[in-house]
Amino acid sequence: MSRTRVHNLNVSLDGYAAGEEVTLEQPIGGAERLFSRFDGRAIHGIDRVDDSPVTFDHALTSTWGQGIGAEIMGRRKFGPQQGAWPDHEWRGWWGDEPPFQTPVFVMTHYPRPPIEFANGTSFHFVDGSAEDVLGQARAAAGRLDVRIGGGPTTVRQFLAAGLIDFMHLAIVPVTLGRGVSLFEGLDDVAADYAVESLTSPSGLTHQFWNRRP
Amino acid sequence: MSRTRVHNLNVSLDGYAAGEEVTLEQPIGGAERLFSRFDGRAIHGIDRVDDSPVTFDHALTSTWGQGIGAEIMGRRKFGPQQGAWPDHEWRGWWGDEPPFQTPVFVMTHYPRPPIEFANGTSFHFVDGSAEDVLGQARAAAGRLDVRIGGGPTTVRQFLAAGLIDFMHLAIVPVTLGRGVSLFEGLDDVAADYAVESLTSPSGLTHQFWNRRP
Repeated sequence: MSRTRVHNLNVSLDGYAAGEEVTLEQPIGGAERLFSRFDGRAIHGIDRVDDSPVTFDHALTSTWGQGIGAEIMGRRKFGPQQGAWPDHEWRGWWGDEPPFQTPVFVMTHYPRPPIEFANGTSFHFVDGSAEDVLGQARAAAGRLDVRIGGGPTTVRQFLAAGLIDFMHLAIVPVTLGRGVSLFEGLDDVAADYAVESLTSPSGLTHQFWNRRP
Repeated sequence: MSRTRVHNLNVSLDGYAAGEEVTLEQPIGGAERLFSRFDGRAIHGIDRVDDSPVTFDHALTSTWGQGIGAEIMGRRKFGPQQGAWPDHEWRGWWGDEPPFQTPVFVMTHYPRPPIEFANGTSFHFVDGSAEDVLGQARAAAGRLDVRIGGGPTTVRQFLAAGLIDFMHLAIVPVTLGRGVSLFEGLDDVAADYAVESLTSPSGLTHQFWNRRP
């Protein structure tokens, strides 16, 4: 059975995983300090960081793409626009080489035609409940797993619906004071999971949440 | 620059990484308890353990194949025979699907013809110094990394020659009393490395050794 997995979700000590104001200049909404310890190259493997030591943080980050056949993301992860699309020029933050290399389902109330890239990434704009969109993503992923790619509002929606099987959080030792909460309104959601926790030498506390059978 | 990497090398509290007597019945030479916490499925990715929780141990194990283009192994990892090959029937412990899926260079004083498998694994039997064999493996790996696959005698030989760039040890909380030592005769070899260390909830202490520039 394919799983739904969350990876490398950086969370502040006060439970925020993004800032509130996503703009073209601030893709993380002003919460960039959440990612100060994050080396994005490692999502494709520890060998991609060959100019610096391979750390535990790199190794845990590198599980991101293993056996993943599709991603689901919220619209704010795809771009800063709100409401109806002004046009179809925006193709995401990632240039010609989006890192996903699978179909990606962007949850939005404003569908538009899909976008395809030569490296295997395609974006599909879908309106529907978490269950509906997960059904589409599972069909695209085949026997592989589905990554719930964020942002925090999207992960929270899937957590609330009981649709997350595995979640890797990286608790960052900073406070934001405000932002988009990962946990708001989720009463004791951790009780449904076996949670492993360890702190790496960098100061990040990693948690692996595995849904109880 | 491609690196030489050691992965998932399980070591007892007294520094042994294999037993002394490798036989057909005892591939680890009687030190099987070293592997009681090792889930070999995870070398190909955390998604391969989909009938059990994904642990930190799985995640760290899964770095094994990332960006690897060739492996070097000692003869005792390939098989229990000693001296001249009685025949060419033995094709390794792994059946028709050896997990390596790259060229593998088996260090032996008794060369024999190479063996090829449909899944991309091939075994090449080579006689030479660590430097010589590494040169052949690097040529086969291209821009990818070379894994020094063990056993402990082979890893020790490459450590002594200063040829290991990265090493992942898993210190297992057991004692063996006797066996094949990883460190015998290596005076303060750790001084050449930055060593990260953490203990996972399973009780394994993982170490990442990164060679200092």
